[in-house]
Amino acid sequence: MRLGIEVDLVYWFERATDVLLQIEAAAMVDQRIVAETLTIWSDDPIRAAIGEDGIGQRCWTRADGQWRAEYRGTIAIDRATIDLLPLAATPPRDLDGHLVPYLLPSRYCPADRFEGFVRREFAGLEGGALAAALVDWVATSLTYAGNASTGETTALDTFASRSGVCRDYAHLLVSLARAGNIPARCVSAYAPGVDPPDFHAVAELWLEGSWHLADATRMAGCGDIARVAVGRDATDIAFMTVFGSAQLMEQSVRVRTL
Amino acid sequence: MRLGIEVDLVYWFERATDVLLQIEAAAMVDQRIVAETLTIWSDDPIRAAIGEDGIGQRCWTRADGQWRAEYRGTIAIDRATIDLLPLAATPPRDLDGHLVPYLLPSRYCPADRFEGFVRREFAGLEGGALAAALVDWVATSLTYAGNASTGETTALDTFASRSGVCRDYAHLLVSLARAGNIPARCVSAYAPGVDPPDFHAVAELWLEGSWHLADATRMAGCGDIARVAVGRDATDIAFMTVFGSAQLMEQSVRVRTL
Amino acid sequence: MRLGIEVDLVYWFERATDVLLQIEAAAMVDQRIVAETLTIWSDDPIRAAIGEDGIGQRCWTRADGQWRAEYRGTIAIDRATIDLLPLAATPPRDLDGHLVPYLLPSRYCPADRFEGFVRREFAGLEGGALAAALVDWVATSLTYAGNASTGETTALDTFASRSGVCRDYAHLLVSLARAGNIPARCVSAYAPGVDPPDFHAVAELWLEGSWHLADATRMAGCGDIARVAVGRDATDIAFMTVFGSAQLMEQSVRVRTL
Amino acid sequence: MRLGIEVDLVYWFERATDVLLQIEAAAMVDQRIVAETLTIWSDDPIRAAIGEDGIGQRCWTRADGQWRAEYRGTIAIDRATIDLLPLAATPPRDLDGHLVPYLLPSRYCPADRFEGFVRREFAGLEGGALAAALVDWVATSLTYAGNASTGETTALDTFASRSGVCRDYAHLLVSLARAGNIPARCVSAYAPGVDPPDFHAVAELWLEGSWHLADATRMAGCGDIARVAVGRDATDIAFMTVFGSAQLMEQSVRVRTL
Repeated sequence: MRLGIEVDLVYWFERATDVLLQIEAAAMVDQRIVAETLTIWSDDPIRAAIGEDGIGQRCWTRADGQWRAEYRGTIAIDRATIDLLPLAATPPRDLDGHLVPYLLPSRYCPADRFEGFVRREFAGLEGGALAAALVDWVATSLTYAGNASTGETTALDTFASRSGVCRDYAHLLVSLARAGNIPARCVSAYAPGVDPPDFHAVAELWLEGSWHLADATRMAGCGDIARVAVGRDATDIAFMTVFGSAQLMEQSVRVRTL
Repeated sequence: MRLGIEVDLVYWFERATDVLLQIEAAAMVDQRIVAETLTIWSDDPIRAAIGEDGIGQRCWTRADGQWRAEYRGTIAIDRATIDLLPLAATPPRDLDGHLVPYLLPSRYCPADRFEGFVRREFAGLEGGALAAALVDWVATSLTYAGNASTGETTALDTFASRSGVCRDYAHLLVSLARAGNIPARCVSAYAPGVDPPDFHAVAELWLEGSWHLADATRMAGCGDIARVAVGRDATDIAFMTVFGSAQLMEQSVRVRTL
Repeated sequence: MRLGIEVDLVYWFERATDVLLQIEAAAMVDQRIVAETLTIWSDDPIRAAIGEDGIGQRCWTRADGQWRAEYRGTIAIDRATIDLLPLAATPPRDLDGHLVPYLLPSRYCPADRFEGFVRREFAGLEGGALAAALVDWVATSLTYAGNASTGETTALDTFASRSGVCRDYAHLLVSLARAGNIPARCVSAYAPGVDPPDFHAVAELWLEGSWHLADATRMAGCGDIARVAVGRDATDIAFMTVFGSAQLMEQSVRVRTL
Repeated sequence: MRLGIEVDLVYWFERATDVLLQIEAAAMVDQRIVAETLTIWSDDPIRAAIGEDGIGQRCWTRADGQWRAEYRGTIAIDRATIDLLPLAATPPRDLDGHLVPYLLPSRYCPADRFEGFVRREFAGLEGGALAAALVDWVATSLTYAGNASTGETTALDTFASRSGVCRDYAHLLVSLARAGNIPARCVSAYAPGVDPPDFHAVAELWLEGSWHLADATRMAGCGDIARVAVGRDATDIAFMTVFGSAQLMEQSVRVRTL
C-alpha cells in the first residue's frame, strides 16, 4: 500500500525561537520512502537529529515571525497484519537494556498505578493473549472525543473519563501493557482513515522479539500506518516542540491511499 | 446496638504545636452518647469547635513533648438499614445550598474526572438505583490492602490500583456518586468489625432528603457505625491534624459491641 | 463608592442540563445592593440556594438549547482599606470551627505543600506581618498572563510558572496564607479595574477576628470590590457550574464606577 | 582518588519476581573499575543489560523468598573539578538527537512548569552562568530532610516544600536546567560524604559538548562521585526495580575514601 502525505504548518513566533519538528515519515524495513520533501521557509539553517531508538529523524530549526513548513511524502508500506494472540510472553528478565525504559512508567503513562487493575481484570493472561485483550479493552471502553482531553491529560485521567483522542488511547494502552510486563512505546504516525484528518498516535507492543503496531482507536489497520517517531509517551513524539512560545495560524494534514 | 469505644493516642512533639482532634463520636438522632470521656494530658487549655455541617465536635489543643489522649465512649446506635435501591433521584437543581459542596469535586475526590466512566458504565441509572450499583461496584472491584495507598492517594489512583484501605474505598465511592449527581460526603466513624482495628471511614449519600451511610468495604453494616465527623474528603475528617510535625509513638483503637 | 455591573451570558446546551449560577453581588454589611436584576430566559423555574458561609446566593436553573442570562446591579461599597501589617496573629487553636476548613489544603490550594517555603522565606513573621509580606510577594513574583493557566492549574503550578490570571493569584496567596496558619478563602467578585473586563477572583484573610480582602493582582483596591461568593477555592466560587456540558457563545462583564 | 564501596541488600519476596538491579559503578573514562564483584544468592541465572545512554550495566535477576545481594567495588576516580561559570551555552537547535530527551520534561522533572520561574529569576543568564546560578540556588534554597518526600515526590513538590533528599535536589536542579535550555540528566552514584550513608543521586548538565556532574546537596565534590547509572529521572536510575512486590529486610551502603 502507498500513502500520499501532505502537511502544511503555519505558525507565528513573536521572537526568534528554536523549534524541533518530527513530521517526516521514518525510513524502516516495513515502510519505504518513495519520495519526500520537507520545505521550511526560514533564513536559519536546518539541522537533522536522529530520533529516539534511532528511528526517523528530528529536524531542528529556528523560527521568527511568520513561519511555514511543508512536508510532502509518498510512502510504500509493506507490513503484514499479525495476530497478537498467539505471541508468547517474554519475562522482563530476558529483555535487552534498550527495552527497559518501555517497561517503566513515564509522565503520561504512569504504568505503576495500573498494576492492580491489570492483575485483577486480566488475571492469568500474559504476552500476546494479554496484549490482544488490552487492545480490545481500550478500543471498546473509550469513546473518541475531541474535547475531552488536553496536552496535560494522563492515562489515569483517560481511564476515568473513558474518552479522548488518539494520543489518549495510545497512552492508556501503553500504560496497561507496561503494567502487564509488556514493553510498550508510543508512535506518532500518518494513517489514511484518521477522522478528522490529523497527525495520528498509536502504540507499539514488544512481543516475541519485535515491535507490533496497535491502534486502539481502530481508525487505522497495521498495514496502513507510516511511523514518524517513537518514544516513551507524547513528550517524545510531539510533531513540534517549541523552545519558547508560538501561535498556530494554519495546520493541515492530509493522508491518502494512492 | 451499643458500641464500646477505647482510643489511646501517644505522640511526640518536638516543639509546642497546635493540634486539632476529631475523635469523639457525634451526638445525633440515630446515635446517642450514653457515656463519654476525652482526657488529654496537656498543660494547655482544651477548646471545642463545631464540626463540619454542625456535626460532632473538633477539639483544639496544644502539645509539647510527649502527648497523650484517651477517649472512652459508649454509644447507643438506633438506625435501620435502608435499601438504597428504591430511593428516588433528586436533580441537582432541587438541592439546597448546603448540599452543593457535596456535588463538587474535592482534592481526594476529583469527581469531575469520573463523569465519563459513570455515564458509560451505569447508563440509565440514577438516584438509589445508581447509588446501590456504585456501592456494589466499589465493593467488588477493590481489594482491601493496607500498603497500597498513602495519605496522598486520590480516588483516581485507587480507581487504577483497584486496592486500598477504608479511606480509599470512601473516596472512590464519593467521587463516583458525585459524578452521578448524588451528593456524597466522607464520614469518619467507629465500627466493631474493622480489621485491623482502627479509625474507620465510610461514605454518606444524599437520597430522598436525607443522608444514608454506605460502607463499600463491607466491614460495617449501617446499623453499627458511630459517626465522628463529616466532610468533603479525608482533609476534613482526619482524626488528628497537626499544625507542625509530630511523631507517632503508640495508637490503639478498640471498638466492641456491648 | 458605587459600582454599576452588567453581565451578559449566552451559552448553548445540547440537552436539558442543570446549571448553578453565582453571579449576583452578595448583600453584606460593607456592600449594599442598591438595585439588582437577574434575568434568565428559561422555561424552567429558577431556585435560589444559599452560598458558602451563608454569603450571597446561588441560583439553580435548567438550560436547554440557547440559554441567556443577564445581570444588572448597582452596589454601594463602604469599606475602609485596612493596613494588614499591625494585625495580630490568632493561633489555630483559638479559631472557631467554621474557620477550620480555611486552614486546610484544598484541591487548587494544596497549602500543606507550601509549609516549607513559608517557614524558610518568611521566618519569624506571623499574622498581619506575614499576610502583608505574602500579598506583596505574590504581587511582585507573578506576571499577569491570560494564556499561562487553565481550569486545572493549581497553586503549585502557578508557584513554578510565576504567571497566571486572578484566579491563580488568589489560589497562590490563599495557599501560602494557610501554610502560615492564617485562615484564607477565595472570593469571586466584581471590580472596576479588571483588565480585560471579566469576573474577578481575590483572597480573604482572617486576622483579628474578621475577614480582610486582598487582591494580589493589585487590579482592585479593597474599597472597590463587590463580593459574589466565597469558598475554599475556584471549585466553590465558579460563576457557573454546569452539570453536563455547555458551549460558550457570548460572555461579557462590565463594571463601572458610578 | 579511590573509593571503596560495600553494598549489602537483603529483601524478602513472597513469590518468584523479576528484579532489575543497577548498583555496579560504571566503567567510564573518568572512573576506572579497579576491582568489582557482584554476588547474588539466587538459583536463577543473572543477565546483564546495558544501561541508559550506554552507561553502566543493569543486572536482571529473579528472586524468591529471602534474597541477598552483595556488591564490592574499588573505583579509581580521575576527574578535575570544572568551573561551570565560563562554559558557553549551546542553543537547543545545535544539540544532537541523543540529547533531546534531556531537554524535555519527564515524570519527576516537569521542566515545562518551571520556565516562568527560570525566565524571571535568572533573566539574562544562559549556559554555564545559568547552570552555576541554578546549582547555587538549589543548594541554598533547600533543606536536607529525610522525611519530607516519598517516591512520588516531583520537582514541583520539592520546589514548594523547599526540602528533600538527594533525589529531590537532583530532580529540582535537572528541572530548572532543562527549563533554561540546558540538557540535564539524573545520575545515581556512590560518594564518600553522603550522610546518612546511602545510594546517592546527583545531576549532570550538558555544557560545551560534555556532561558535568553537579551535586546540589554539596555532600560530594565532582572529584569523588562514582556514577552508577544515568537517565531522565529517578525512574531510570533506581538501584532496584521490582516487577511485583518485595519487602526490605536489611540494606547498607558504605563508601570510603581509600
